[in-house]
Amino acid sequence: MSIRIIITGGTFDKHYDEIRGSLTFKDSHLPEILKFLRCSVPIELELNQLIDSLDMHTANRLRILESCRRAAEERIVITHGTDTMVETAAVLGGAQLAKTVVMTGAMVPYIFNNSDAVFNLGCAIMAVQVLPRGVYVAMNGRVFGWDLVRKNKELGVFEQK
Amino acid sequence: MSIRIIITGGTFDKHYDEIRGSLTFKDSHLPEILKFLRCSVPIELELNQLIDSLDMHTANRLRILESCRRAAEERIVITHGTDTMVETAAVLGGAQLAKTVVMTGAMVPYIFNNSDAVFNLGCAIMAVQVLPRGVYVAMNGRVFGWDLVRKNKELGVFEQK
Amino acid sequence: MSIRIIITGGTFDKHYDEIRGSLTFKDSHLPEILKFLRCSVPIELELNQLIDSLDMHTANRLRILESCRRAAEERIVITHGTDTMVETAAVLGGAQLAKTVVMTGAMVPYIFNNSDAVFNLGCAIMAVQVLPRGVYVAMNGRVFGWDLVRKNKELGVFEQK
Amino acid sequence: MSIRIIITGGTFDKHYDEIRGSLTFKDSHLPEILKFLRCSVPIELELNQLIDSLDMHTANRLRILESCRRAAEERIVITHGTDTMVETAAVLGGAQLAKTVVMTGAMVPYIFNNSDAVFNLGCAIMAVQVLPRGVYVAMNGRVFGWDLVRKNKELGVFEQK
Repeated sequence: MSIRIIITGGTFDKHYDEIRGSLTFKDSHLPEILKFLRCSVPIELELNQLIDSLDMHTANRLRILESCRRAAEERIVITHGTDTMVETAAVLGGAQLAKTVVMTGAMVPYIFNNSDAVFNLGCAIMAVQVLPRGVYVAMNGRVFGWDLVRKNKELGVFEQK
Repeated sequence: MSIRIIITGGTFDKHYDEIRGSLTFKDSHLPEILKFLRCSVPIELELNQLIDSLDMHTANRLRILESCRRAAEERIVITHGTDTMVETAAVLGGAQLAKTVVMTGAMVPYIFNNSDAVFNLGCAIMAVQVLPRGVYVAMNGRVFGWDLVRKNKELGVFEQK
Repeated sequence: MSIRIIITGGTFDKHYDEIRGSLTFKDSHLPEILKFLRCSVPIELELNQLIDSLDMHTANRLRILESCRRAAEERIVITHGTDTMVETAAVLGGAQLAKTVVMTGAMVPYIFNNSDAVFNLGCAIMAVQVLPRGVYVAMNGRVFGWDLVRKNKELGVFEQK
Repeated sequence: MSIRIIITGGTFDKHYDEIRGSLTFKDSHLPEILKFLRCSVPIELELNQLIDSLDMHTANRLRILESCRRAAEERIVITHGTDTMVETAAVLGGAQLAKTVVMTGAMVPYIFNNSDAVFNLGCAIMAVQVLPRGVYVAMNGRVFGWDLVRKNKELGVFEQK
């Protein structure tokens, strides 16, 4: 059984541009992260896009849906910005894919030494192996069905709708 | 729903003693780790022991079993050395606890910047919420029933028996 | 012999605000950093301000000068934003303090795992002990007299004027 | 002006062997460290040996001396185990090299997230540029002449003899 990780950017993969002094995108950190996870499940990485989810339009979300459809794997993890993760989850949920899809991201970029990125990745990689077909969001140590979750923007946590 | 994390030491919590130049135990890192996980599931931490699992005797394992029995929580994660994790899992599995117990650990101590500790914790915290009653081992991104797993000591990975 | 570290903010001490998804100021990281440096020179920390040096006005720089004058110590390190570090150095240099003052900062915030902050601090703490009275800038592994240095903003490095 | 860094191992470059659960040597971390230091002084790295300084014999120390003699650079930093750093410094000091040589190391390996390694490197790289010809030890934020320093093994710090 193998897992496809579809990378779409978000806070998870933000990069620090020291000339401008701002957070931006450059490459994904997933290849580097996989080296120390010691995950024995075969993983296929797909760099789909690197975008802040606040900047996503329908076309961006449909591109993710298309990747899910096209994937040979039946178990897919998607790294995504947290701000509109629920919106993309709805697009995927509505498509009734015969796959297990778990979306995750990070409140603090991986490059920070106090990031939640790797913890969330662990939660998602476990969830995608044990949950039945469907679309889910794994954040804050919990997993939610795509239509039962929202992001609480004041507290910066995901919660049951 | 809350989770109890029973800390027993192992490579996960090794500490570097710079006077002796060796790895030893001092305190657990779990309190510090919990701060950046942003886990919204209530977690109770229990410092049960801090021991290398190669140094465990039956009494050490029975102490863990006793803690599992006594716990108010029905979902328990145990951090444990990897070398004899399967032995302790057998003691717990044989006790037929009416709880979900997931054991995890680390091949590389948390204090190293390329550790698998936090990833494994994510896997375990997710597994303990979605799996039914039973005793499991969550390592290398996978979860195994307690009686179906062994540690491959040459490769340093956990695999199906 | 003791050293005063006057903290003024800059990229060195930027903090990630996960609700807004931006870099801001909160507390200084110097107290935490000092714990693992194992520096046996007595160090006095002074939190002077926490500001991006692009936002500094003359009043901000004069406040730093006043702190240098008032300091009991004759050896002072100042952590400062890199963008206008040379401007503040000129204010201090022109005051002809009978002290050794070394300014430093970081191109990448300390909180990032690939930061130059600690390396620069090492350079500055060494420079302030061995250099004669005067005002200096220690960046990129080098030390410059205050009137002989500029920041190359395209390359993001400090160089001889 | 360029600097040669002669790598000899020591705690600085210890590597965690997860199969044996012990600290050993594999490669030096200096190439990776140089990437984020943003040091604009040209640096030549020389992998001389990777050894715990407690295991050094005269031959090991003479090999370092030979490298110092042969070096085209007049400014040399040596990363070395702290336990017998002073012994090697004496061998180099007695040779009366017409160069500036600064020895440094780490009490905690670079691979640990609370290591003093990078701070010490900053101190050494600054010291080697500003000090006159001679052999020095840079540890704990201070610099000592080779014949005026010892390691306090109870406290794990370097101090004036």
